[in-house]
Amino acid sequence: MVNVGIIGYGYWGPNLVRNFSETPEANVVAVADLDPARLQLVQRRHPNVRTTSDFRDLFRDSSIDAVAIATPVKTHFELGMAALKAGKHLWLEKPMSQSAAEAQQLVDEADRRQRVLIVDHTFIYTGAVRKMSEVMNAGELGKILYYDSTRVNLGLFQRDVSVIADLAVHDFSILDHLLSEEPVAVSASGTNHFPGTPENLAYITLFYDSGTIAHVNVSWLAPVKVRMILLGGSQKMITYDDLEPSEKVKIYDKGVSFTDDPQKILEMRVGYRTGDMRAPRLDGTEALRVEGAHFIDCIEQRKPPQTDGNLGLRVVRLIEAATASMCGKGETVYLQKQVRFA
Amino acid sequence: MVNVGIIGYGYWGPNLVRNFSETPEANVVAVADLDPARLQLVQRRHPNVRTTSDFRDLFRDSSIDAVAIATPVKTHFELGMAALKAGKHLWLEKPMSQSAAEAQQLVDEADRRQRVLIVDHTFIYTGAVRKMSEVMNAGELGKILYYDSTRVNLGLFQRDVSVIADLAVHDFSILDHLLSEEPVAVSASGTNHFPGTPENLAYITLFYDSGTIAHVNVSWLAPVKVRMILLGGSQKMITYDDLEPSEKVKIYDKGVSFTDDPQKILEMRVGYRTGDMRAPRLDGTEALRVEGAHFIDCIEQRKPPQTDGNLGLRVVRLIEAATASMCGKGETVYLQKQVRFA
Amino acid sequence: MVNVGIIGYGYWGPNLVRNFSETPEANVVAVADLDPARLQLVQRRHPNVRTTSDFRDLFRDSSIDAVAIATPVKTHFELGMAALKAGKHLWLEKPMSQSAAEAQQLVDEADRRQRVLIVDHTFIYTGAVRKMSEVMNAGELGKILYYDSTRVNLGLFQRDVSVIADLAVHDFSILDHLLSEEPVAVSASGTNHFPGTPENLAYITLFYDSGTIAHVNVSWLAPVKVRMILLGGSQKMITYDDLEPSEKVKIYDKGVSFTDDPQKILEMRVGYRTGDMRAPRLDGTEALRVEGAHFIDCIEQRKPPQTDGNLGLRVVRLIEAATASMCGKGETVYLQKQVRFA
Amino acid sequence: MVNVGIIGYGYWGPNLVRNFSETPEANVVAVADLDPARLQLVQRRHPNVRTTSDFRDLFRDSSIDAVAIATPVKTHFELGMAALKAGKHLWLEKPMSQSAAEAQQLVDEADRRQRVLIVDHTFIYTGAVRKMSEVMNAGELGKILYYDSTRVNLGLFQRDVSVIADLAVHDFSILDHLLSEEPVAVSASGTNHFPGTPENLAYITLFYDSGTIAHVNVSWLAPVKVRMILLGGSQKMITYDDLEPSEKVKIYDKGVSFTDDPQKILEMRVGYRTGDMRAPRLDGTEALRVEGAHFIDCIEQRKPPQTDGNLGLRVVRLIEAATASMCGKGETVYLQKQVRFA
Repeated sequence: MVNVGIIGYGYWGPNLVRNFSETPEANVVAVADLDPARLQLVQRRHPNVRTTSDFRDLFRDSSIDAVAIATPVKTHFELGMAALKAGKHLWLEKPMSQSAAEAQQLVDEADRRQRVLIVDHTFIYTGAVRKMSEVMNAGELGKILYYDSTRVNLGLFQRDVSVIADLAVHDFSILDHLLSEEPVAVSASGTNHFPGTPENLAYITLFYDSGTIAHVNVSWLAPVKVRMILLGGSQKMITYDDLEPSEKVKIYDKGVSFTDDPQKILEMRVGYRTGDMRAPRLDGTEALRVEGAHFIDCIEQRKPPQTDGNLGLRVVRLIEAATASMCGKGETVYLQKQVRFA
Repeated sequence: MVNVGIIGYGYWGPNLVRNFSETPEANVVAVADLDPARLQLVQRRHPNVRTTSDFRDLFRDSSIDAVAIATPVKTHFELGMAALKAGKHLWLEKPMSQSAAEAQQLVDEADRRQRVLIVDHTFIYTGAVRKMSEVMNAGELGKILYYDSTRVNLGLFQRDVSVIADLAVHDFSILDHLLSEEPVAVSASGTNHFPGTPENLAYITLFYDSGTIAHVNVSWLAPVKVRMILLGGSQKMITYDDLEPSEKVKIYDKGVSFTDDPQKILEMRVGYRTGDMRAPRLDGTEALRVEGAHFIDCIEQRKPPQTDGNLGLRVVRLIEAATASMCGKGETVYLQKQVRFA
Repeated sequence: MVNVGIIGYGYWGPNLVRNFSETPEANVVAVADLDPARLQLVQRRHPNVRTTSDFRDLFRDSSIDAVAIATPVKTHFELGMAALKAGKHLWLEKPMSQSAAEAQQLVDEADRRQRVLIVDHTFIYTGAVRKMSEVMNAGELGKILYYDSTRVNLGLFQRDVSVIADLAVHDFSILDHLLSEEPVAVSASGTNHFPGTPENLAYITLFYDSGTIAHVNVSWLAPVKVRMILLGGSQKMITYDDLEPSEKVKIYDKGVSFTDDPQKILEMRVGYRTGDMRAPRLDGTEALRVEGAHFIDCIEQRKPPQTDGNLGLRVVRLIEAATASMCGKGETVYLQKQVRFA
Repeated sequence: MVNVGIIGYGYWGPNLVRNFSETPEANVVAVADLDPARLQLVQRRHPNVRTTSDFRDLFRDSSIDAVAIATPVKTHFELGMAALKAGKHLWLEKPMSQSAAEAQQLVDEADRRQRVLIVDHTFIYTGAVRKMSEVMNAGELGKILYYDSTRVNLGLFQRDVSVIADLAVHDFSILDHLLSEEPVAVSASGTNHFPGTPENLAYITLFYDSGTIAHVNVSWLAPVKVRMILLGGSQKMITYDDLEPSEKVKIYDKGVSFTDDPQKILEMRVGYRTGDMRAPRLDGTEALRVEGAHFIDCIEQRKPPQTDGNLGLRVVRLIEAATASMCGKGETVYLQKQVRFA
């Protein structure tokens, strides 16, 4: 049994409390929030959970094994470091920190203290991404040619993070999880249409040494909601439409191939091929439930999570690089190769 | 009555012959093509139309008033100049030429000889774009914030033009038609996955002085077909889904607005507003029919077409700039301001 | 403040408890269920609510003003009568009883004791149906020509009710609410593919004196989920797709009209007209919340609810008639005219 | 080489002329129509085809092997009999005649004279129906439980046939082709909303001895176009959406099964199962092309077509039975068992 404390009961915190409450191997001991009204809500919903307005109470409580932090991004570093230094295992909301330097310190601290550090990149734990991963690992797609994601809707403008840190972050984590290589360069464009607000719309291209290219289109200003990923391989291609109630993931037996037919060569050099499509059944378990159980399991087994601090760090590096490129109207930003620990 | 000759009876030429045949004020006199099999097909379908394998026959024929050229792009300049020098009015397929320098010469030659020069940017004549133009000119959208187009499918790889000249060209012409300003800079990324072929996938961002931003995603390598434009204004927003059998254009009474509510300001600075949506009835006349009649009318009234050589030239300039940026992995390319004649 | 007791904490009961808990003018006092495990769940979620395995405790408790019954259909009559006789206002799940005779007794008992009797036909309180009602009452549709509903999916086979009582019941209540007349005859076909189970698939046609015709297609055996209503008027037509995340209701300026054009009369006698479509913004409040507040309001104001016992009774009569016709492979069953109280 | 004459160049005739013109083994010799303007159109489009306003010219012409009749339904019998008596092979548009008695005479006459008689139930030759047939014949679906078709749109009101003969006829032919049994009873409801016009909306249920049930919903009065068939088997289920540009046919590994789990039995007696879905690649050849070639082949090989007169006759019998039931507001009409020749 792992005792968990949660800091932050705003938008996402309630999901964490609810999920850990229903995870057999976990026990929610305490919740901290600065807002007394939110703490009253916790008491009403979870009468057995202790509440406090001082997050340090959680660090001091030696019965607490792990702390989950669901507060604004700018507080992640300070709270996360304090939790690790108090010897707690750490669950951090995404993105894990405001800068790669901070993320690196968090990773190092967790390593030094042998604590489990998970970053809540929830998408990795969805039935859809797990199925895509399975299909790719089986080699069905062939060589990966491109990844193309559209993630737009009329969304609440965030105060302290841009649309890249809010939405593109999902694609950065999915790409890191699915591909066996890291991007070498980034070009991003975007804009904030309202002075004094973060960018509300951005287009990001990631370049890979293998020739794979990835593109992410994110916006808080679209009249319709779109959550669509295209993933093209030389053998097969995948679409992942997260708004489909069922059949979210479709695998197309479509591809391109060089032709030797002289008649066709006259017009083009590449032919295409169309076969069946299939939509595999997906595991419908709530992703956060899967992730919570995985976190507990990693603590008990002393193993690194799938979305560990290193993955979280690489995602923050991409946010930094994309933001830098966006300031330069698409100027290419090269990423330094990093040793990958995962 | 305007007598028309057509050069090129490959993929698009038959549409031109059919349309001009059914335009009351036009008369198709002759068709030229290098391939005897294609000329036989003309004779079978249109027994009264003269055929020739020598396009110069059309220039020499003084009964021919106008020539339409539907040949590979690399031949547009030579054939177009010859037609103009022979005193013919000119219909050129898109893009009008391989380079902006050539396009400028074609424009100048047409001006000098007082000939009508139309570039076949067909989309401008669709019911959908005409309705969007009407709604924008009525000021319904407010300030234009962004234009975002996805135009992908598993398409035939072109031999002599990239996916930008094949597909993004449609968005460049629509943007030129709808917006009252020209872009000042371009950032584009793209790749050719098969050595020796043109780019088969590209992502292009256009920047405008007013703050409007435009983005175009084009690909010949997608497992599904998408033809979707989002157009966001400060008052209303439009979606244009060309694959919808009806209701292609939808106008959303949605937008964002600054808030003075202190509670909301704590979380964000911009609020959003959602109202009704309407899908206006669109004129279903075939765009090529509308365009053909417009060309004849321009010849008879001696007036410039909506998609004249200047628009065609600006589109070629954008293709050049986007291609240059794409070679530099998204490097910003600034466009020189041009006097706009339209 | 109205004190509420709920009997039955199975599939739907939890929604009632949650909703009344969050309705300001209501207070959930007690919950009864035969299953101790369900009562434990109540205690965990709502520590301040009393639980009991004997539903009679609720009737004896004079502090309880109203009782909501969410138990299997076959128990509705006995429990409902007991509640009314104990002087409680009554909320009954749909369908209100197994027979029209029972429904009539419940209505009479409520009338005699001046108690409010509401039947939980939730759809009537959705933003979609309320908007459709508003549009129809404004006369926008013209004369109502037909209502056509498809309500199919791969659903859990019910044990004690057929697919008509499970799904068509929604359409019967919507029709009763929207139309100003009652059907005069019913023809229904259907089947149970598995011996010993209720009908799992049915097609029902309702005939009205005015010429309006209604059709309902319900099934637990469809591979895809469909929730689609078409409503055709002589002036405009409506579609209501309940699976659309937004734009559930669309109003089409489409219709048919007689033509005097002799050319057209040669081919047909009726022409059609196509105009704009609009999707009005819908109130997104949870229907059960609206209905709960309405029930409380009716109790306090002593007024009949929109879905009162008479509506519930008419719905049960239709279920009976449709079931009788279904046994006769579509044999017409005529409905006796009833005085309408609403 | 088979010489073909076509009678009727109205709505469908041009498709027949075009298709037979492009079928290598066929040769279009002559076209008859009463309207001189239609004949002029033939001459313009097909200069080598003879035209006549007297259909008897085609019967007298001994060089003509086969006659295709695309005239109003009420003329099918007279023209068809005359063609057969003149020794011609016969292609009849659907439905083949106004009554089953006439259809029987046409079948008998063709048998007596050993002529090929095909009825143009085009859907049978689509890639979609051929694939469905293939899947069913392979036993993939298990026992067939139901067939459910919706075929509605805002359509031209026909003058001489009801919506059943216009639209439901497609389902009657598909059912006859796919199922190995004939229906034993019919119940249909429908109405004509405009006095003096045929029924414009109808709901038809077909009953089969095996327990299979079929339902067809047809209308010329719907604001949106729907062309959707659901086909449920005990093992798998199919959807066929004819408006999907690709992936028209989807095969769902979904079904129901009895359960022995006592816990589940408490709530229901049947469980369901959900697996992968696949959309097989369909042959995209135009159905009319396939059918034309099949007709020619049947003539040359002296074999009966897939949609021979017997199938056409059974379809007419269903139209008669459904129409009779519709007049009786859904009254069950029993079909006499017929020996099946196919």
